[in-house]
Amino acid sequence: MKIKKELLETFENSYPKRDYLIIHQADEFTSLCPKTGQPDFGKITISYIAGRKCVELKSLKFYLQSYRNDGIFYEKVTNQILDDLISVLKPKWMEIKGVFTVRGGIFSTIIATHGKK
Amino acid sequence: MKIKKELLETFENSYPKRDYLIIHQADEFTSLCPKTGQPDFGKITISYIAGRKCVELKSLKFYLQSYRNDGIFYEKVTNQILDDLISVLKPKWMEIKGVFTVRGGIFSTIIATHGKK
Amino acid sequence: MKIKKELLETFENSYPKRDYLIIHQADEFTSLCPKTGQPDFGKITISYIAGRKCVELKSLKFYLQSYRNDGIFYEKVTNQILDDLISVLKPKWMEIKGVFTVRGGIFSTIIATHGKK
Amino acid sequence: MKIKKELLETFENSYPKRDYLIIHQADEFTSLCPKTGQPDFGKITISYIAGRKCVELKSLKFYLQSYRNDGIFYEKVTNQILDDLISVLKPKWMEIKGVFTVRGGIFSTIIATHGKK
Amino acid sequence: MKIKKELLETFENSYPKRDYLIIHQADEFTSLCPKTGQPDFGKITISYIAGRKCVELKSLKFYLQSYRNDGIFYEKVTNQILDDLISVLKPKWMEIKGVFTVRGGIFSTIIATHGKK
Amino acid sequence: MKIKKELLETFENSYPKRDYLIIHQADEFTSLCPKTGQPDFGKITISYIAGRKCVELKSLKFYLQSYRNDGIFYEKVTNQILDDLISVLKPKWMEIKGVFTVRGGIFSTIIATHGKK
Amino acid sequence: MKIKKELLETFENSYPKRDYLIIHQADEFTSLCPKTGQPDFGKITISYIAGRKCVELKSLKFYLQSYRNDGIFYEKVTNQILDDLISVLKPKWMEIKGVFTVRGGIFSTIIATHGKK
Amino acid sequence: MKIKKELLETFENSYPKRDYLIIHQADEFTSLCPKTGQPDFGKITISYIAGRKCVELKSLKFYLQSYRNDGIFYEKVTNQILDDLISVLKPKWMEIKGVFTVRGGIFSTIIATHGKK
Amino acid sequence: MKIKKELLETFENSYPKRDYLIIHQADEFTSLCPKTGQPDFGKITISYIAGRKCVELKSLKFYLQSYRNDGIFYEKVTNQILDDLISVLKPKWMEIKGVFTVRGGIFSTIIATHGKK
Amino acid sequence: MKIKKELLETFENSYPKRDYLIIHQADEFTSLCPKTGQPDFGKITISYIAGRKCVELKSLKFYLQSYRNDGIFYEKVTNQILDDLISVLKPKWMEIKGVFTVRGGIFSTIIATHGKK
Repeated sequence: MKIKKELLETFENSYPKRDYLIIHQADEFTSLCPKTGQPDFGKITISYIAGRKCVELKSLKFYLQSYRNDGIFYEKVTNQILDDLISVLKPKWMEIKGVFTVRGGIFSTIIATHGKK
Repeated sequence: MKIKKELLETFENSYPKRDYLIIHQADEFTSLCPKTGQPDFGKITISYIAGRKCVELKSLKFYLQSYRNDGIFYEKVTNQILDDLISVLKPKWMEIKGVFTVRGGIFSTIIATHGKK
Repeated sequence: MKIKKELLETFENSYPKRDYLIIHQADEFTSLCPKTGQPDFGKITISYIAGRKCVELKSLKFYLQSYRNDGIFYEKVTNQILDDLISVLKPKWMEIKGVFTVRGGIFSTIIATHGKK
Repeated sequence: MKIKKELLETFENSYPKRDYLIIHQADEFTSLCPKTGQPDFGKITISYIAGRKCVELKSLKFYLQSYRNDGIFYEKVTNQILDDLISVLKPKWMEIKGVFTVRGGIFSTIIATHGKK
Repeated sequence: MKIKKELLETFENSYPKRDYLIIHQADEFTSLCPKTGQPDFGKITISYIAGRKCVELKSLKFYLQSYRNDGIFYEKVTNQILDDLISVLKPKWMEIKGVFTVRGGIFSTIIATHGKK
Repeated sequence: MKIKKELLETFENSYPKRDYLIIHQADEFTSLCPKTGQPDFGKITISYIAGRKCVELKSLKFYLQSYRNDGIFYEKVTNQILDDLISVLKPKWMEIKGVFTVRGGIFSTIIATHGKK
Repeated sequence: MKIKKELLETFENSYPKRDYLIIHQADEFTSLCPKTGQPDFGKITISYIAGRKCVELKSLKFYLQSYRNDGIFYEKVTNQILDDLISVLKPKWMEIKGVFTVRGGIFSTIIATHGKK
Repeated sequence: MKIKKELLETFENSYPKRDYLIIHQADEFTSLCPKTGQPDFGKITISYIAGRKCVELKSLKFYLQSYRNDGIFYEKVTNQILDDLISVLKPKWMEIKGVFTVRGGIFSTIIATHGKK
Repeated sequence: MKIKKELLETFENSYPKRDYLIIHQADEFTSLCPKTGQPDFGKITISYIAGRKCVELKSLKFYLQSYRNDGIFYEKVTNQILDDLISVLKPKWMEIKGVFTVRGGIFSTIIATHGKK
Repeated sequence: MKIKKELLETFENSYPKRDYLIIHQADEFTSLCPKTGQPDFGKITISYIAGRKCVELKSLKFYLQSYRNDGIFYEKVTNQILDDLISVLKPKWMEIKGVFTVRGGIFSTIIATHGKK
């Protein structure tokens, strides 16, 4: 798969001793259904308590856009984003929430977490 | 009753070691009132932490549609869906929430749970 | 097709000289897609200025429920309800609006009218 | 029927030469279904351009409350209120709108008008 | 007072070993103010974990309607409904919430509970 | 009555040849009921097409506050504000809309207009 | 200051052994800014678990209205209401929440509590 | 550009003599900005009065999806869809409305129409 | 004043024969009050039917940002934007709507128009 | 950087023994992006339990306005406000929440806390 976590850039956390919460909500996520090739749409919310590094916002946008033409299941998308961000940021705590639009009359939400809050 | 849990299909959970949450919300559930034969309408929300298996979304849609012409009480619907999904998925935790539209000026909600979160 | 306008009952309009507006909104309409057999869901709004007759509310409910297991397109449903109600009520003016839920990410609305307001 | 328009009191319109609009919305209307004896609930909106008289607000409340234990159809309620207020106020223009809660999955709205705006 | 808990009917709980939650929300509650005789309006929400019995929905509607012409305070209504349902259902846990509309610019809510969740 | 239109200040309209619309919505209007002395609350919306003068915003606030402890009916308030602003601004067109909060379960709206739009 | 807790009247709690929650929300609170004399507006929510006494609703309305022409800060209003109600009702638990409208682009909320829930 | 109106399929209008309105709203439209290559997102609403032909819903979905990886301006998208649908359907009246999400803090809407309603 | 319409760039209208509507809504407009120096905030909506030219979106953003530190009244802002865009675009029709946030409890809206729709 | 916490003024807490909550929500915060110079917009919510001092509302407004033309990242803004208010107020507990508008399709929220509630 051509998704590349190398797209993610970071900057140094200026307040490493204070456990504050950072939340980024991307409302325009889209990928493809691996079975039918039909487009999927969703909202991805990334919440974390930074360790030494924070994710740079523009690079996060490009990273999420890189899924646009990949065929990938909802469960996989959410866990993949979590794995990639953990490996790049080493956060103290992180949660990825994917809310995907209706398919066959059914909404789906996936929530995956790393570490303790 | 002609409801068949055999309609439910599964796929393997790719992240069995991570306890992440999966939520499916079906807004277009309908069955019949066993007393009057009148149609009932509701929303069914299925939340679970998967064990080895996840429920396949299209098969879940067909399973829920199979209640369309069955006469069945709200309490029974909700618990029956829970029982069927437990037996097929063996989830670590599962909750079924049924929110049913007004009858005689009264909304009804039934919430049944399996396991500890 | 087994839809029967004979289900519709009427009562006499007590104010035939006053052109007042009657609106009934049925939020729980369901039929089947004639191509796929999949359930369709929608809201049907019936607005009219009565002539000599008004439609009896309970019979209207049974009439709309009679579409539950029929395979019929959106355009056809809306125009069929208009034709049936015109033939039974002879209203001075009537509008049928059908708002149907998402299929393939697309909402559909059909609005058909009879007479001048 | 024991509904009495004598409950309605008026006060003189201080601005009879200016055609201004007065709207009263009563959200807590209730009467009984004449067929089943079951309670009906609704919102009644009274809009008018006064002639020489305006309706006194407290008397309007008592007038609307007088329907509480009467068995009366939606169409009749709305037209009856219009007739009573016309006979007491002689307004230049008046509209009564009754929006009634769901019965058998169907909302109903009745709008009756007197005069030209 | 003429309120009669004998109106309440029950049916047997099919899942007595599973502690699931049942919620009924009645949006059209009305009684009278014992001081002024003026009508009061509110929403009553009944939440419970059943023991051996569940309350039958239609009988619950008739029970709540029986307050229509009784003069009774908000605090009394809410606690009375709790007492009546406890005595008939013997639930494991129950909560009654009454949300009453504005009087003199003030909304009131009363929440009474029985047992531990 | 101690309400004084002298509180209103104006500034010159810089675009007297263009008929543009100015709307001021004051959400915190309060006066007293002349019958009971109880406080009334409402929203006042002033829309106009200016002639040579526009109303200065701060002076408009003080003007509306001057009603705080006056006993005055809804119909009177709305028409009085219209009369005062017409006499000070000589607008090409003006509309005053007063939306008053619930009294005895009834909302009231008064809309008075001057000139043609 | 002319605020008088003597305005508050009580009635006996009919269910002193059951710890139920009473909430009164007054949406039309107004006082004056002690610095500028400008009117302040807000919503006051009073939540409590009664001891032997409940506050009578009409007297509560008059009590809150008595602040109408007093110059008093937000923090003071909220704590003052709490102190007055504690001294009159001796509640088991009580919370006062004041939500005040925008001043200089800033909303303010004050929440003061007495006892443990 | 690889957008092909040949994707659009039609079916015969069963009610060609009645001028009824058909509305399709596609909430998941996406294309690319021709300048930056960044994804654009929007909602496309297609309203028309059919002549002899109606557009088939599934083919409409595939047609709209064909813009996914095209670089095209908002104004062009909206007018292009109008031109393609006119050439295929020959409607009596048609309107295309594109509502596009925020770019640089600015929402954009384009509305193009064909014929008279 | 340092506001410069030279910031506005245009591109050629590809559909000059079709009178279609273009709407840009900028939610993040800010300027300064010329009296107090305090910041004002608002939403600016620009609607037009293009002649030969359309406004380029990024240049429109920079143009609107150029007001950030100017002291200017609401009426002036709205009319100034209209004048600048007319002079640059020569549109067939144009409307500028400015909705400004609360000052002293009062919202203000200014709507200025050029040409006939 | 020219942000000066000296702008913040305080007044003495009249209820230092009661741990009550004070919340100020400023909806009109704006600063500049340090990378691009483009304006950023957001809402800042300040919640605290006062020690001996409360922040004076007008001075808080001027303090927040002082960021208007500073280039500063979201994480920095939120933590800086927290640091400044801690140093001036010595609160028992404090939380700063910054909710920033969409940039590149992504909303961002930063929540930083001091002390235990």
